[in-house]
Amino acid sequence: MTARPGEALQDHYPEGFAHCFGCGRLNAHGHRIRSFRDGDGTVARFTPAPHHMALPGYVYGGLVASLIDCHGIGTAADAELRREGREVGAVPTPRYVTAALHVNYVRPTPMGVELELRARVKEASGRKAIVEVTLSAGGTVTATGEVVAVRAPEAMIEGSRGRGVEG
Amino acid sequence: MTARPGEALQDHYPEGFAHCFGCGRLNAHGHRIRSFRDGDGTVARFTPAPHHMALPGYVYGGLVASLIDCHGIGTAADAELRREGREVGAVPTPRYVTAALHVNYVRPTPMGVELELRARVKEASGRKAIVEVTLSAGGTVTATGEVVAVRAPEAMIEGSRGRGVEG
Repeated sequence: MTARPGEALQDHYPEGFAHCFGCGRLNAHGHRIRSFRDGDGTVARFTPAPHHMALPGYVYGGLVASLIDCHGIGTAADAELRREGREVGAVPTPRYVTAALHVNYVRPTPMGVELELRARVKEASGRKAIVEVTLSAGGTVTATGEVVAVRAPEAMIEGSRGRGVEG
Repeated sequence: MTARPGEALQDHYPEGFAHCFGCGRLNAHGHRIRSFRDGDGTVARFTPAPHHMALPGYVYGGLVASLIDCHGIGTAADAELRREGREVGAVPTPRYVTAALHVNYVRPTPMGVELELRARVKEASGRKAIVEVTLSAGGTVTATGEVVAVRAPEAMIEGSRGRGVEG
């Protein structure tokens, strides 16, 4: 099975890992961030809700951090798929977790436009990846970030197995 | 006017700045993070909702980043009040914005317990502060962070003036 056009990396996270508030397809209350392979990097697009504000007119920095985090984690997983020569959807997407997150708020991010995230893996081994992410609004970069992603520890995988329900 | 017991720094943000998704008292959909002066630092407590998960049993890292961000920003404002010898609530709390946010996820943050954030200003001028934040769950530190906070630019202040409604 390979990804059909329009399928995101997160569409193929194993079920126990698909509840993330940021990017879980099974989290009814979450942001449902979706990341797509694009050239040798990845892209995601997201339009904040009106209440996702820092102050009127500007996007909340915590949301910016969340978008960078989940898109970076998806990109780390994509790098592993690429190393194995696999398409998105060929196997369940490997699940990484965040060891460190760094965000630089270059300028205020305006509300009312679709945001675009682009990411690229700076370095990666099988266990860890460092991902660089840029976030743009209307073609202008408003934030840059770096995500240190590590493969989800076994204890987390065991803990989540068979727990398909929120909470 | 000085703060009554139980009043938070965010309770005294100017109205145009009180809509933040993380800590705005006027954002009906937000986290409403509240930070209190405590000794020579600050403290905030927050219990994640069940849907704020990364995967079952563990708190979403983007929420952790948001808590660290808003609590750090409140702490930067408190440092300015202290420099002026003022109590919380004596004047509107100065409003800072985030220039950079760094979060280290030391270990997974468990769901189902109240989280405690403690912060301290590492260095501060009138315009900028660097704030160190720790987040604990059940007495164990699960994340540490650093927030680079700068006074809200005039353009933002102008833009938010009189805009008391979300969106």
